[in-house]
Amino acid sequence: MIELPFALSEYKARLQAIRAEMARRNLDLLVVNDVANQHYITGYDGWSFYTPQVVLVPLADEEPVWIGRAMDAAGGLLTAWMKPENIVGFPEDHVQRADRHPMDWIAGWIARKGWDRGNIGIELEAYYYSPKAHARLTAGLPNATFHDADLLVNWIRSVKSAAEIDYLRKASRLAEAAVTAAYDVIAPGVRECDAIARIQAAQVAGSPDFAGDITALPPTILAGENASAPHVMWSDRRFGENETVALELAGVVRRYTAGLARTMQLGRMPAKVGDTGKAVLEGMEAVLAAIKPGITAEEVEAAWRQVIQRYGLKKESRIGYSIGVAYPPDWGEHTISLRPGDRTILKPGNVLHSILGMWMDGWGIEVSETILVTERGCETLTSFPRDIHVKA
Amino acid sequence: MIELPFALSEYKARLQAIRAEMARRNLDLLVVNDVANQHYITGYDGWSFYTPQVVLVPLADEEPVWIGRAMDAAGGLLTAWMKPENIVGFPEDHVQRADRHPMDWIAGWIARKGWDRGNIGIELEAYYYSPKAHARLTAGLPNATFHDADLLVNWIRSVKSAAEIDYLRKASRLAEAAVTAAYDVIAPGVRECDAIARIQAAQVAGSPDFAGDITALPPTILAGENASAPHVMWSDRRFGENETVALELAGVVRRYTAGLARTMQLGRMPAKVGDTGKAVLEGMEAVLAAIKPGITAEEVEAAWRQVIQRYGLKKESRIGYSIGVAYPPDWGEHTISLRPGDRTILKPGNVLHSILGMWMDGWGIEVSETILVTERGCETLTSFPRDIHVKA
Repeated sequence: MIELPFALSEYKARLQAIRAEMARRNLDLLVVNDVANQHYITGYDGWSFYTPQVVLVPLADEEPVWIGRAMDAAGGLLTAWMKPENIVGFPEDHVQRADRHPMDWIAGWIARKGWDRGNIGIELEAYYYSPKAHARLTAGLPNATFHDADLLVNWIRSVKSAAEIDYLRKASRLAEAAVTAAYDVIAPGVRECDAIARIQAAQVAGSPDFAGDITALPPTILAGENASAPHVMWSDRRFGENETVALELAGVVRRYTAGLARTMQLGRMPAKVGDTGKAVLEGMEAVLAAIKPGITAEEVEAAWRQVIQRYGLKKESRIGYSIGVAYPPDWGEHTISLRPGDRTILKPGNVLHSILGMWMDGWGIEVSETILVTERGCETLTSFPRDIHVKA
Repeated sequence: MIELPFALSEYKARLQAIRAEMARRNLDLLVVNDVANQHYITGYDGWSFYTPQVVLVPLADEEPVWIGRAMDAAGGLLTAWMKPENIVGFPEDHVQRADRHPMDWIAGWIARKGWDRGNIGIELEAYYYSPKAHARLTAGLPNATFHDADLLVNWIRSVKSAAEIDYLRKASRLAEAAVTAAYDVIAPGVRECDAIARIQAAQVAGSPDFAGDITALPPTILAGENASAPHVMWSDRRFGENETVALELAGVVRRYTAGLARTMQLGRMPAKVGDTGKAVLEGMEAVLAAIKPGITAEEVEAAWRQVIQRYGLKKESRIGYSIGVAYPPDWGEHTISLRPGDRTILKPGNVLHSILGMWMDGWGIEVSETILVTERGCETLTSFPRDIHVKA
């Protein structure tokens, strides 16, 4: 058994919160397809979600059930807290075949268990849960009524416990180490791939006291012609003289993710980069001054927008989102977004990754912080000089 | 514009093969949701698939269309070969909202284009295509008839061109470098995370001549109590004395993936490990002797099974699969599987990752090769000593 990241009492509290919401919605069973939610509920951890994998949470006071590929049930026994009979493997002869589907088998299991009646809540927009899987599951459970339960668990995740915040603090240390490594290695003539190798090593090796995990998004380095495109991957391109280099990095400890974006300037700082940088840094000050319990997500964005409008700038995309436990391909929790129209009222324990990315024509600037909403205001979990780092 | 991995003529040939199959199935439009297929068709490359992203291939002789998040259209202009008007961004105000969905907008775009009638083929089991996305797309296109087109493109991908094989050869060099790094760093007392950092650095930094890309599955190291669970991730656990360490690694060049699994023995080799290792190595010889054009996938597996049965061993799961261009979470192509019941006839240009993994009670052995089916037999693209590596 691998050491659980949290005390059993914390898993029980999570289940209690989930069941309270299930009861409110009159759900008898919750089918959890989102891998991060599965981990949040059970502790299960493994790179096994390339075949169908579900966690079942009955409203009744029973342990949840993990069902995945038979080969990976061994990993379930090592990582999840439930009793062994609640770790269930679908047979190997159901893996990636045209004539049968793991969801046929899973539907059969649910029916044999007697959980196939009443109202079933199910996450319909989880990564790795396909339309075909859903069609086979619902066909196999004709006596149930299905209800969309997207984000039910995610909203509960949006308020972090003290133990979760502790992991996020550790993750922030690794995010800072990643940016430090980037500042150190990136220079004119160095290949992007060599820089990434150094950055990932800092992320994964972690600290002497704890390991780093894989980041849900790979490290992004935007420089040269790629700088206008926020999610292009690295290559063997070499950094040029006088390039502006935007870095979107993270640190991850026990799947808890802290994001940290910073910008470097190789050689001389062009006036436009300096000016935009000044606006962005002032915008970040406005964001941090605004965040406190009781304010809405859109009010935080408005504080930012007011600043950059004064500089004649604008940004179409949101400036932040809830962050926490994460698996690829995304570290955002898909709940709170700092943007117009999001009237979510911020609460103590929310953790936001506010990323101020300005992708201009052929260059870009990114600055971010991972921010904890506290009782009275907020605190940046990430702690690293925010200025554009000039490396002459 | 980032240099395309292939000549334009190769993309045209791919489209031609896809359209021949579309015509055979009487499809007017193909909606491609699988990220690897999207890349195969268009060259588009970016970590943007955490919001909906499609590639549309009309039967008519027109360029395909990429549609994704507005922010990522910039990356489309840099990486895909189509003309700029065929790179389409859905508006930022559709990202992760409860009140609207990117697929509403994409359905509208398809209708405005006049592609909303007739028979639409669509991939219903792509990793990042959700039941909700599908419900919204089909609701927005009431005049079309939808047909499952899973694996249509994947089967075309299963026969590799000379240029693809060249990337797979380069990728094999990086897989070998990754195993070399693992053999070098892993020793009693070393933490798994520190070993992973070294392995990933070898994978990503690549060679002096080309970069390495992210692997679709992260490096797996199975040792100690984790050895029985094939997809558990690394931690800060330290390797012990006399541990058997199974490594499942890969090298990736321009998204083309070569897998390479090997096993190390720290300290003294226990007799059971040596005996099982001997059976597995003999099994691999049988696999390589069997693979040639005209043989079926299940016949290859039978050759392996015959060997290990003689040793009193058995393995439930398949012993290999088609491999090539890949994005997380899987590097398998979901077409050919080396297992009973798979009657696919192997052809020159098929590339298989044959992985012989025996996960026993508390220890495990893995040995694999990435194998090209040639005109007369086969060739291992990976080239690395196959014996269990004893590090005393």
